[in-house]
Amino acid sequence: MQTLIQSVLTLRRDASERDALADTLEADTLETVDVLLAGTQIQAVASAGTLLRAANQRVIDGRDKLLLAGFVNGHTHSSQVWQRGLIPQLPLELWLANVFESTPRQLDQIYWGAVSTAVDTLLSGGTCVMDHAYVIPGQEMETVAALVRGYRAVGLRAVVAPLIMDLPFASGFPKGCLLPQSASPRSASELLALMEAMVAEFHDPDHGIYIGAGPTGFHRCSDDLLAGCADLSQRYGLCYHTHLLETRAQHRLAQERYGISAVQHLANLGCLGPRTSLAHGVWIDEADIDRMAKAGATLVHNPVSNLRLGSGLAPILKCVQRGLNVAFGCDGSASNDAQNLLEVIKLGTILHTVTEADYDHWLTPAQTLRMATVGGARGVNLGHCTGRIAPGFDADVILYNLNHPSLLPSTNPLQLLVLGRPTEVVESAWVRGRQIVDQGRLLTVDVTALHHALLQPSSPPQRAQTQHHPVEPHYRNVMLNR
Amino acid sequence: MQTLIQSVLTLRRDASERDALADTLEADTLETVDVLLAGTQIQAVASAGTLLRAANQRVIDGRDKLLLAGFVNGHTHSSQVWQRGLIPQLPLELWLANVFESTPRQLDQIYWGAVSTAVDTLLSGGTCVMDHAYVIPGQEMETVAALVRGYRAVGLRAVVAPLIMDLPFASGFPKGCLLPQSASPRSASELLALMEAMVAEFHDPDHGIYIGAGPTGFHRCSDDLLAGCADLSQRYGLCYHTHLLETRAQHRLAQERYGISAVQHLANLGCLGPRTSLAHGVWIDEADIDRMAKAGATLVHNPVSNLRLGSGLAPILKCVQRGLNVAFGCDGSASNDAQNLLEVIKLGTILHTVTEADYDHWLTPAQTLRMATVGGARGVNLGHCTGRIAPGFDADVILYNLNHPSLLPSTNPLQLLVLGRPTEVVESAWVRGRQIVDQGRLLTVDVTALHHALLQPSSPPQRAQTQHHPVEPHYRNVMLNR
Repeated sequence: MQTLIQSVLTLRRDASERDALADTLEADTLETVDVLLAGTQIQAVASAGTLLRAANQRVIDGRDKLLLAGFVNGHTHSSQVWQRGLIPQLPLELWLANVFESTPRQLDQIYWGAVSTAVDTLLSGGTCVMDHAYVIPGQEMETVAALVRGYRAVGLRAVVAPLIMDLPFASGFPKGCLLPQSASPRSASELLALMEAMVAEFHDPDHGIYIGAGPTGFHRCSDDLLAGCADLSQRYGLCYHTHLLETRAQHRLAQERYGISAVQHLANLGCLGPRTSLAHGVWIDEADIDRMAKAGATLVHNPVSNLRLGSGLAPILKCVQRGLNVAFGCDGSASNDAQNLLEVIKLGTILHTVTEADYDHWLTPAQTLRMATVGGARGVNLGHCTGRIAPGFDADVILYNLNHPSLLPSTNPLQLLVLGRPTEVVESAWVRGRQIVDQGRLLTVDVTALHHALLQPSSPPQRAQTQHHPVEPHYRNVMLNR
Repeated sequence: MQTLIQSVLTLRRDASERDALADTLEADTLETVDVLLAGTQIQAVASAGTLLRAANQRVIDGRDKLLLAGFVNGHTHSSQVWQRGLIPQLPLELWLANVFESTPRQLDQIYWGAVSTAVDTLLSGGTCVMDHAYVIPGQEMETVAALVRGYRAVGLRAVVAPLIMDLPFASGFPKGCLLPQSASPRSASELLALMEAMVAEFHDPDHGIYIGAGPTGFHRCSDDLLAGCADLSQRYGLCYHTHLLETRAQHRLAQERYGISAVQHLANLGCLGPRTSLAHGVWIDEADIDRMAKAGATLVHNPVSNLRLGSGLAPILKCVQRGLNVAFGCDGSASNDAQNLLEVIKLGTILHTVTEADYDHWLTPAQTLRMATVGGARGVNLGHCTGRIAPGFDADVILYNLNHPSLLPSTNPLQLLVLGRPTEVVESAWVRGRQIVDQGRLLTVDVTALHHALLQPSSPPQRAQTQHHPVEPHYRNVMLNR
């Protein structure tokens, strides 16, 4: 069946979007259009009143509604749903010590984590997620199977990039670590073989499920693993996704270990390319930005998490000015205790005024909405099929109810969607042409079952750990007592 | 009738709170208590299981719920409800030029602005608002009457501090302004006489409605008006509320006009005291903080608005470290396009990590919740009667539903309330002992009538103005081309 959405507001398509070639971020006005969804795709977009109803079409009255391409949550860790609210505010390295201790270890938790992440994504305007996924040691295939089952159950488009690493936790600290080293994880070759098996088993672009190559980050990975993932990415066309220079400690570690910029090091290993998305990049400099832009890579900005962990301010305005593609991520629920894309986009829109006095350079809602859609799609290597409302693109679209009290009075819907605090405004959502949300309700999964699982977990959440983990004195000494 | 809430979680009362003397911000744990509300007050708080039901009592099962003192929204402008989403992101001075042009001019808009603000306050955990209120020129008394009517209709505790000024708009710019001066407003003596009339007519502490002395800010006020308001504040025991050093332009203006710190100037005029609350203070320095702390004044932190207008980062960690009382404000909806206190508290909790590497100094959720309650109450000169769950304090309390999906899984309710993105978690609210919200629904006003008013305004909202107001070249020249 086809769906015709008539007379609906949308972001004005600029010339570049009409031919789907370039990614200018300039359009900031609305236009009223008719949109025809057919099969898995958007079949037509035309000025309002020009697409006439055919016999086999369901018609939706788009008046007082806004249609946007679905956002991409460019970086999260779905299992952390179980840890939201749990971990104190600490710098990443100390926070991680707490996260590990309370990480869920059961496959049903993994499944419900994916379902919860998918539902929160949809109800905050997203249709696709990059799950940089924790995998249970020894149950790696089973973990990915549970995640895929979760995303399929909801119907979200998902890239699952298992977090893999072959260096121990302590190697992520500058100046080594005086504590007993944690057990070394699997070797690079074992991990790469495992990834090949996962690609064979789960990578399924025709049905919106993808495997990504997701080395945790240079701080936890050997060069063999980093480069091996680049090889995988190239051979199978996978998104290459990794943490990059999230913290000042990682910046110091890169200097210590490589003597050159971490970004240059990744480039030297062949890890920077148009399929590469790098999460955080708080501590990249202008030369790094230029390297990443030249390679066609994507920076995934996680503003809530960056503040929550005190990681710093990513240089997003510079990235935009220098032509680097930027996407948004929620990051996991242990460092952003919600998975709401509209919240992340709002903060990303207003935060960077603190680094720039000239208001002509401030990000506008239209710009950040494009980052969340076009930019996000590119970041997960899916810029050819999602992130735009244009003929031939997959029908990954969200219909917002502009008459919801949180979007009133009717002033500028784009500004209010981004700068307000909209709640329950997603009226309908389609992913690959399939309607997943109608009247604000999920059509695929039973959210009361999800609620029940979160309410009475099979393994009750642990209470917050102490702020003073054994690794703390070392960290304090290295990072604060300079 | 009395209400007994049994076995409910609350913030641990520290010793200082039990005798209601000092304001330490140290408690960060939860305890389970019984709380008895009687008449307008909290009659008893005791360990769970120790308060037994009496015949005339309604009993509420507090399990899986959290009871907190109501937050105080320490700074907003209710009429801006009509302008949310409307104004582009611009520095305050240019943004103001747009705000004036689209300010509502009808009394019914003023009324619904107050109702909307009150409802949003309650449903995000607040029981009291400081409305630094725009008043329609020539209809000042009628405007305040409409506001009071709105707050009474909802049942919120409210301080209405009419925005008064006796210097023209252009005087708020450094280096004067080359544009034709706008008409001069009323004189200081006229304004002070008007304020006296408002106090006589509307100031009604016995019923939770207060008039505040609210000179707009030193940038728009003569010394006579600033000092005259201090005199009013002293004679009638009113809160003194004013904007302070919100922007870099105001900081330069103070140097230009006074040659000394604006805070010192206010102190010299007798405007700094324990009844004084100062909104923003983004550009105060350490000496200013010490002056304000010594006077017992309050800084009202408006983090969303400060980012939205690019005003900068208020030095909140320094304020806390130097003993200055800090409260939170949403600021008006034209500069924070929502009136959600939980959003403001979240941002205020995580934002200041960017200025401080030592995580031991980062604000905790328990600290910021105290700022929003105890700190907020002091800021509106009501620290003696609201902001605490303690016997003898007014029953201004909020009961949160910890089983709401946005507060699951059950890890650390305080952290999740502050660091998550809770939605529809306010189950019940009492103001001065009167229950205003039950099962998440308002008991006093018809929210569908509010929705209807916002949906079909008597005077449709204007579309956003141009970014390039005639005053823009002057501003750019003075503030950016140094």
